[in-house]
Amino acid sequence: MQNVRVVLSHTTHPGNIGAAARAMKTMGLDRLVLINPRLFPDPQASAMAAGADDVLQNALVCGSVDEALQGCVFVAGMSARVRDISHEVLMPREAMPQLAQYATQGEVALLFGTEMSGLTNEELARCQVMVRIPVNPEFTSLNLAAAVQLVSYELRLAAEQDKLEAPELILATAEHLEGYFRQLEDTLVEIEFLNGKHSAKLMQKLRRLYARTRLEHEEINILRGILTLTTEYHGKLKQRVKEDV
Amino acid sequence: MQNVRVVLSHTTHPGNIGAAARAMKTMGLDRLVLINPRLFPDPQASAMAAGADDVLQNALVCGSVDEALQGCVFVAGMSARVRDISHEVLMPREAMPQLAQYATQGEVALLFGTEMSGLTNEELARCQVMVRIPVNPEFTSLNLAAAVQLVSYELRLAAEQDKLEAPELILATAEHLEGYFRQLEDTLVEIEFLNGKHSAKLMQKLRRLYARTRLEHEEINILRGILTLTTEYHGKLKQRVKEDV
Repeated sequence: MQNVRVVLSHTTHPGNIGAAARAMKTMGLDRLVLINPRLFPDPQASAMAAGADDVLQNALVCGSVDEALQGCVFVAGMSARVRDISHEVLMPREAMPQLAQYATQGEVALLFGTEMSGLTNEELARCQVMVRIPVNPEFTSLNLAAAVQLVSYELRLAAEQDKLEAPELILATAEHLEGYFRQLEDTLVEIEFLNGKHSAKLMQKLRRLYARTRLEHEEINILRGILTLTTEYHGKLKQRVKEDV
Repeated sequence: MQNVRVVLSHTTHPGNIGAAARAMKTMGLDRLVLINPRLFPDPQASAMAAGADDVLQNALVCGSVDEALQGCVFVAGMSARVRDISHEVLMPREAMPQLAQYATQGEVALLFGTEMSGLTNEELARCQVMVRIPVNPEFTSLNLAAAVQLVSYELRLAAEQDKLEAPELILATAEHLEGYFRQLEDTLVEIEFLNGKHSAKLMQKLRRLYARTRLEHEEINILRGILTLTTEYHGKLKQRVKEDV
């Protein structure tokens, strides 16, 4: 559980931060990361923490999702909505055993969006899986701290299973992944596969593909090696054309 | 779920009643019964209900546990403590399928004690089973509404059983896949990423990566499009140069 961080993005109500800290601690989680909270620290947060003040005091406040997810090999995003380009969507009960397993080998994150609108597309793009808590379709208004409570509970149960085997994958970190996606996009623009029109959508589809895979560190190196040579090859082709003329 | 009532006994904070109503409603429960609440109705309860006002409005306020449990064929009591006279103590995940089953036959209740001291012995005696939510032994301070949320969630899962499924993938066929791998290998040879020495091993690693993903038909088309452009550029550039001349 030490490798698990709970990341709350742009939380509006400080009371929810406190209640989330309390919820985390009851389930044995204590690493809270806040991306640009509207108000923090705040007396309301402390009041709602009800004894989990240490979680609040040790909370890390970040300015960006990249900073918040630094070092993470696996990110599960919480979603209440169905999206256009769908990630793998799992129930907490399916996702938390995976998260617990990845946490035995590296840092993992549970990423929660704002109270009103959930995760942004930029945040979504950082997630390997989406987790959807099954709710009453006629009243989906699950409180943020309640969602933290439910998912932390499932994680605790999953972690207690004791059947955690060391996974054979050595996963890439979030920043390593982003570096790959940047190089991929640059290369695809260069070879004119991406030409502006459907670029964003195509990149989303490629992100989705690799999110499903859960890329390993070594695989990123292979893929980046291919991209580097693709660009070099491209340069050579240009040179050859010039010489031909 | 219509046969399930949530009974809160001697609740101290009206905010917890509102938050419990909200928690219930997100999981499809709407029958709230209150035994001698300290303050109810109360603006704080309404504020915390956040749209579950109907649950509060329809709440039944009772003067005794007998009144609250009238007609119930099965009562599950919530407990954070180990008691002298031990009931059958179950985890929510074990108890809620039973409760859901009994609810198909008659009225059932989930009975919650006060925030500070839990159920009285008189209340305990009315329960067929005790339910204990597994918590961090070093911080057991689970909020009342959070407990309602967790148990309602387990009940919903037990009652529904139909899992949220990951979005259905339209997977590529074996021959489609092989076509991709052939083109991938040809391209990697051409850009001199593969040069004989570790080629077989690298191709194996790339196959493993994509095997994990389970490529979709459309994704293969995207990936093949990228490969085609990686090698096609030469021709296009030549054509353009010719036209320029």
